[in-house]
Amino acid sequence: MAWLRSAFQDELDGVTATLVELSTIVTDSMVKATHSLLTASVTEAEEVIASDDRVDRIAHELDSRIIDIIARQQPVASDLRALITALRMSADLERMGDMAHHVAKITRLRHPAAAIPSELLLTMEEMGKSVKIVADKCTEVIADRDLNKALEVEVDDDEVDRLHRKLFTSLLDESWPHGTETAIDITLIGRYYERFADHAVSIARRVYFLVTGTYSDKKD
Amino acid sequence: MAWLRSAFQDELDGVTATLVELSTIVTDSMVKATHSLLTASVTEAEEVIASDDRVDRIAHELDSRIIDIIARQQPVASDLRALITALRMSADLERMGDMAHHVAKITRLRHPAAAIPSELLLTMEEMGKSVKIVADKCTEVIADRDLNKALEVEVDDDEVDRLHRKLFTSLLDESWPHGTETAIDITLIGRYYERFADHAVSIARRVYFLVTGTYSDKKD
Repeated sequence: MAWLRSAFQDELDGVTATLVELSTIVTDSMVKATHSLLTASVTEAEEVIASDDRVDRIAHELDSRIIDIIARQQPVASDLRALITALRMSADLERMGDMAHHVAKITRLRHPAAAIPSELLLTMEEMGKSVKIVADKCTEVIADRDLNKALEVEVDDDEVDRLHRKLFTSLLDESWPHGTETAIDITLIGRYYERFADHAVSIARRVYFLVTGTYSDKKD
Repeated sequence: MAWLRSAFQDELDGVTATLVELSTIVTDSMVKATHSLLTASVTEAEEVIASDDRVDRIAHELDSRIIDIIARQQPVASDLRALITALRMSADLERMGDMAHHVAKITRLRHPAAAIPSELLLTMEEMGKSVKIVADKCTEVIADRDLNKALEVEVDDDEVDRLHRKLFTSLLDESWPHGTETAIDITLIGRYYERFADHAVSIARRVYFLVTGTYSDKKD
């Protein structure tokens, strides 16, 4: 005889599945936004910009579904906390989509010129790879609630911070030849990648707290 | 005989009172952060930086209280939506506190030098005034749920955007004499003020939606 699962548990699993879907979409968007930046591809940039509405719509529908579940099922204790945490993760993921969108808009703004000077391409490529590592692991943490992976996300984010500092160091080099406009672009792009990864770290911390009831860090 | 209010209504009013308190604190923090920037006052900057922990603590306690109310009272329909909206407003306000904190950290980083070159002081002062107008009205909207004021917040935010563009125009002037480091500072400071005001606009929109069930805008 099959093990009977409650309808409520199915609804919670459905919420998790949508969060995983959202996390996958925003990760793909940031990968594509990075590629658009490195290759000055306005076609890819337009795809990222167009896909942001889809992220917003999925997040919005998910939020309505979560509030509906709370109203109908009236969960308490850990189930209620899980649903509130899902609402917060939905907001983090929606914001990660916004960051990919912002990066793609800089590609489009500077097209047909490249926003990134050639000597910074390698650092930006590394930045793209390091935020993908953080975001992929964040997706796994949402799906599996694996606490070791949740802790790894924080460590992986250190590499994003290191590359962010490296970008600033390049801008501040006295021989910086690219003018203020490019410096502004790089400053904002660096901030968008950092914030993207910060939201992934927030999600990992939320899962850690949900499972253990304790914080994985000293501050947020 | 006195009109009898429900304990639940008192709890909702308590939530609103704490949101108003938080909104007042983060507005004061941004005013002080602006003053620290304009006068290169590291003392004021330190006060803003120290007060951020208090904002985080109040927001955190409020979130726990809201979740506890949902668990005990099991509200449905408009009461549940009001409590979920309060959770989101708490997150917006906490983030507004972070923005004031970030501005104050730039004052401290550049001290004893001024982060803002003298020819931009007036624009920054206007920026500080315009975000205070937005934030003060946001506090009123939380307290009164006044829909006209909620719509005004969006219009007032246009002035913040105008000043933000003016800052960038100054940076991009070919005769910009202050080097890349100052350009990076101004780029980030401009972004912090813009985000601070964006969160106030989000709060006004959340209140509008809560009261009317319709959106005050086309996109968020």
